[in-house]
Amino acid sequence: MKGLHVIKAGIVGGTGYTGVELLRLLAKHPEVEVTVITSRAEAGVKVADMYPSLRGHIDLVFTEPDVALLGELDVVFFATPHGVAQNLMPALMQTKARIIDLSADFRIRDVALWEKWYNQVHGAPELVAQAVYGLPEVNRAAITTAKLIACPGCYPTATQLGFLPLLENNLVDPTHLISNAASGASGAGRQGKIDNLLSEVSDSFKAYGAAGHRHLPEIEQGLRDVQPSGIAPALLTFVPHLLPIIRGIHATLYATLLDANKVPDLQALYEQRYANEPFVDVLPAGQLPQTRSVKGSNMCRIAVLRPQNRATVVVLSVIDNLTKGASGQAVQNMNIMFGFDEKAGLDVIALLP
Amino acid sequence: MKGLHVIKAGIVGGTGYTGVELLRLLAKHPEVEVTVITSRAEAGVKVADMYPSLRGHIDLVFTEPDVALLGELDVVFFATPHGVAQNLMPALMQTKARIIDLSADFRIRDVALWEKWYNQVHGAPELVAQAVYGLPEVNRAAITTAKLIACPGCYPTATQLGFLPLLENNLVDPTHLISNAASGASGAGRQGKIDNLLSEVSDSFKAYGAAGHRHLPEIEQGLRDVQPSGIAPALLTFVPHLLPIIRGIHATLYATLLDANKVPDLQALYEQRYANEPFVDVLPAGQLPQTRSVKGSNMCRIAVLRPQNRATVVVLSVIDNLTKGASGQAVQNMNIMFGFDEKAGLDVIALLP
Amino acid sequence: MKGLHVIKAGIVGGTGYTGVELLRLLAKHPEVEVTVITSRAEAGVKVADMYPSLRGHIDLVFTEPDVALLGELDVVFFATPHGVAQNLMPALMQTKARIIDLSADFRIRDVALWEKWYNQVHGAPELVAQAVYGLPEVNRAAITTAKLIACPGCYPTATQLGFLPLLENNLVDPTHLISNAASGASGAGRQGKIDNLLSEVSDSFKAYGAAGHRHLPEIEQGLRDVQPSGIAPALLTFVPHLLPIIRGIHATLYATLLDANKVPDLQALYEQRYANEPFVDVLPAGQLPQTRSVKGSNMCRIAVLRPQNRATVVVLSVIDNLTKGASGQAVQNMNIMFGFDEKAGLDVIALLP
Amino acid sequence: MKGLHVIKAGIVGGTGYTGVELLRLLAKHPEVEVTVITSRAEAGVKVADMYPSLRGHIDLVFTEPDVALLGELDVVFFATPHGVAQNLMPALMQTKARIIDLSADFRIRDVALWEKWYNQVHGAPELVAQAVYGLPEVNRAAITTAKLIACPGCYPTATQLGFLPLLENNLVDPTHLISNAASGASGAGRQGKIDNLLSEVSDSFKAYGAAGHRHLPEIEQGLRDVQPSGIAPALLTFVPHLLPIIRGIHATLYATLLDANKVPDLQALYEQRYANEPFVDVLPAGQLPQTRSVKGSNMCRIAVLRPQNRATVVVLSVIDNLTKGASGQAVQNMNIMFGFDEKAGLDVIALLP
Repeated sequence: MKGLHVIKAGIVGGTGYTGVELLRLLAKHPEVEVTVITSRAEAGVKVADMYPSLRGHIDLVFTEPDVALLGELDVVFFATPHGVAQNLMPALMQTKARIIDLSADFRIRDVALWEKWYNQVHGAPELVAQAVYGLPEVNRAAITTAKLIACPGCYPTATQLGFLPLLENNLVDPTHLISNAASGASGAGRQGKIDNLLSEVSDSFKAYGAAGHRHLPEIEQGLRDVQPSGIAPALLTFVPHLLPIIRGIHATLYATLLDANKVPDLQALYEQRYANEPFVDVLPAGQLPQTRSVKGSNMCRIAVLRPQNRATVVVLSVIDNLTKGASGQAVQNMNIMFGFDEKAGLDVIALLP
Repeated sequence: MKGLHVIKAGIVGGTGYTGVELLRLLAKHPEVEVTVITSRAEAGVKVADMYPSLRGHIDLVFTEPDVALLGELDVVFFATPHGVAQNLMPALMQTKARIIDLSADFRIRDVALWEKWYNQVHGAPELVAQAVYGLPEVNRAAITTAKLIACPGCYPTATQLGFLPLLENNLVDPTHLISNAASGASGAGRQGKIDNLLSEVSDSFKAYGAAGHRHLPEIEQGLRDVQPSGIAPALLTFVPHLLPIIRGIHATLYATLLDANKVPDLQALYEQRYANEPFVDVLPAGQLPQTRSVKGSNMCRIAVLRPQNRATVVVLSVIDNLTKGASGQAVQNMNIMFGFDEKAGLDVIALLP
Repeated sequence: MKGLHVIKAGIVGGTGYTGVELLRLLAKHPEVEVTVITSRAEAGVKVADMYPSLRGHIDLVFTEPDVALLGELDVVFFATPHGVAQNLMPALMQTKARIIDLSADFRIRDVALWEKWYNQVHGAPELVAQAVYGLPEVNRAAITTAKLIACPGCYPTATQLGFLPLLENNLVDPTHLISNAASGASGAGRQGKIDNLLSEVSDSFKAYGAAGHRHLPEIEQGLRDVQPSGIAPALLTFVPHLLPIIRGIHATLYATLLDANKVPDLQALYEQRYANEPFVDVLPAGQLPQTRSVKGSNMCRIAVLRPQNRATVVVLSVIDNLTKGASGQAVQNMNIMFGFDEKAGLDVIALLP
Repeated sequence: MKGLHVIKAGIVGGTGYTGVELLRLLAKHPEVEVTVITSRAEAGVKVADMYPSLRGHIDLVFTEPDVALLGELDVVFFATPHGVAQNLMPALMQTKARIIDLSADFRIRDVALWEKWYNQVHGAPELVAQAVYGLPEVNRAAITTAKLIACPGCYPTATQLGFLPLLENNLVDPTHLISNAASGASGAGRQGKIDNLLSEVSDSFKAYGAAGHRHLPEIEQGLRDVQPSGIAPALLTFVPHLLPIIRGIHATLYATLLDANKVPDLQALYEQRYANEPFVDVLPAGQLPQTRSVKGSNMCRIAVLRPQNRATVVVLSVIDNLTKGASGQAVQNMNIMFGFDEKAGLDVIALLP
């Protein structure tokens, strides 16, 4: 099933949900072989003993991270919590490996802003400028040649893909954008916290981080990047919510039309913007997306509508937070970096029902 | 447990979820005895055979609806789909019974507007003006003497209670209000529809009715009722979503401050507005509500905040759609109508976890 | 709502799920007032800040446990993990307080057996013999005068109530009993363990502890207690499973009839055995129990049947693990100990849907 | 992605969950192209409009079933409710198409027994003997040349694979077998029934059909087929339960050892029995299976243990009811019939988390 000249990949911090999702996708990728997976805490443990779904598909054992060994690989994925990748990065950047960081460490270009929101000193501020923000729908060309990819967050991916056509064309008031988003519990990672117990999350719904969530500056940076010059910079009100589901992000976006009497055909605008994107699906007019329609797939499905023909545009955008919101997008970046078919290993149908 | 002079109550259409919820609450109400429960489809069936939770608590049998019999009761609840109550109402209004209609039939004062959104001719338009909209936090005085109560819908209750302090005080732009709301599946009723199967709803999330939901005109009517005169009438963008939970509504409300430099203490404003309301709980600053904190209870819990100190106010409002959003509110109305303690039968602690 | 001469109650270890469930039940109990609730970890925290469902109902603050203070109360509940109650017990037994221990510390009379299964030295072995096993359906008389109650575990309650009529009457082979049971996730308590995350438990099902679960010796002790003398002692195969629900235990019990040709009317047998039990409901023949029919209630619902008229009897038994399986049963014990109506504070209807 | 000489496949009754699951698997199968999918009710509807997960992967439209057209295909799958396939079968058996029936119509060789349990006259009793029961782990050779495959039910697959090694070797009392099984809600199909609503199934658990489920005779037939001759025929007590999950079957099997003093190494027995089976995974001793470890995959995972070293053997067996329990097994049969790699199109990793 694998090609003749597969590249070698490593995963740093593979015990979390983005790690097992990378393994699920890479195990069947025709051009890649995962040869190293690291975890300080689980060194010596067989991957398949921790993730029984991988039995018979992955025969690796977790090992201690070793920069020399990682540096000989073609590509290294960081599936670590924020604050980890930046410590290994200076050494790893000296090696031949290309790096795809799924954490937040290199997403925000303004280091001071990063340090404020993440409440710590950045460990490799000099490398931030070298990182390419890995949203292919915006940065495909830069990704091709990147040494270091900062893979976007889950909420940022769903929100940016939903807003892009409106902002690129300056159709809405950029200072009153709203992203009302909801995420499945896997977004909080595989950590033993009371807040994420089934008994706490199940059969309930709540907002969290409404006063200020770390994805806010990342989203605003991304939205501002696509605005025409000379426009007031995007200001977003971002309220995330916790869904009693495992996978899925649903972003409900609101924006006010600058001129409600002179609005282009929004459906056509969105369809054209994403016509050549393999992983953005603009639904036919009248259909609304559901998170289950992308469960386990790398697709983002979007609907745009204008209720009551009033001044407020509503955009609905869904992704799987572990796939297009993390590991799938990382693989998409890898495909672009190494010249593979962009859909290689990602042409998966969502699991429905 | 019951008092000496209990009133007699009947329930029309008791097989649905609002019916069983009325029974759950009224069975333990100290001042009321349910003596009649009707269902054409289930006539002859024991209530406890349909709802095993009621075994040992309710010993009634479903019967065919009979206006003469209902008219001799003190209070009659309609727990029917829209379009049913209006047919029995002309006859029932001639009897001594006071009536609490949980359906949408008498909520909207503009009959033409009702007929447009509900897509049918109204069966008793002459009675619409006599109905009191049963939101105690706004209409308590009128409820006291009402013959016919139109009990508010679930989304309208959560949304109105969240917006009232802002609109009463004309603090926000009334023409750009947003209610991003999510409901548990019990809101769709106990009907055998594919869309509500566990295999369709579970482990997923979606918006629905985004182009126009029947609760929109009801909410806008309620919001306009509390605006000071001379103000542009409230215009709402309302996007409901379907949660994979049984009970609970979570409304995330957004409004733009008219003067971001001259904003009163919003926390204090909300606390004062609801200080004497037995079923509205304004959370301490910094706490956010969760639907499970009101599961099975008649409470509405609200938080208000202003993220990043910008111009957008966010209000979070949660209720149990079957309790404060339907049957609990109906009992609250009954308590007010008959001079009982407003909390009688409703002083229940939410089931958590 | 409270009576004139309420007793004073304390709860040791009130931060877990059995603690909040005790508060939910006792807050509305007419004869009891909770005046102390302890937690070393949360001392100083308002109970309602941890459990928002209790806002407006409970105005207590967690405090450090203090035996002197606890000893002045009428009743003290231990809602602690196993191993804690036994340390405070020697001192507390010297006070006037009567004690209801919801943990496993005093359930097993054979101290060596306890120490083997719980893998620790017992801290108060001399008190074990004084404890009364608090299953009212078996030990009501002894409970009346008990100083110390060992409240049964959740699986043991569901399993024993299901098997009792068969074993008391020596109708089945006692050496081949099977309890295939399933519990909601709240049974694992409110602890930050990865195994209990929504992302791990939800949308899945598994057995656990099949090789040997700590409730096995407790169940076998209880079953043997009700066997006629001279019979081979009960041997149980017990396989617990983890359900992706919050509350509820469902035990599916299997036993082989000793004489398949001479079997009494099992439905009548069960109905008679439990005719006077306020919290055991034998369903009509043909109905099967569901956990939701007891959610939040203290009821145990049971069905008995004999498929294909073969030699295997099947008994289905459901309870809410936090209510009849823990805190509700504790309150039932308290009611019996203090001569209250056995249903006081427990006459609650399950939350359905 | 498809091979050069793909076979052509049709699906009759493709609107249900087994239909969409067939499409998910066949869309990526390298040797097959689905060219026809029928549904009387949905004729003219695009498949992807009903199943948004298939957008971009399947471009078919539902059509009326047409035997002439179906007969020209290489393989026809029936994903219909029982009672449908038998009507089209006499005509279809005259064509060149080979047929894989996922329904119960041809599973039971004793037509009278089928008619009793399915409560209807069989429409093609003369064809029953020609059907091969499509459990590859038992009937691989016969499947190779079969014209008509009767694909096993979901409970029967999980139960038979769990019991086979014990029965083939006559290690347990065949007259006291127990299968305590639980299924996700998708097993009930995509039908608008109240019993399967999220509000009815979620956050609850119950047994159903305990007095007699249609899969009982199918399982007993399968178990008896593998018993050595001269042994008392297998008698099973089968109690199915409904899980609040979408996909997954978990069977907990109990059997009594004939000679508890002379038991082979059960772990080794199971590992050897299934050593060459691509879709049966015997877990290492000490590990227990979970349904999520096979979600979306065709794998059956099994554990065998003997608690307390007593006479009762416990076997735990999990499958995805829609994959190995239905559509995946159908594809596995097809692979065998047409000489493809048995894993073609089925080498999928379960979606975890």
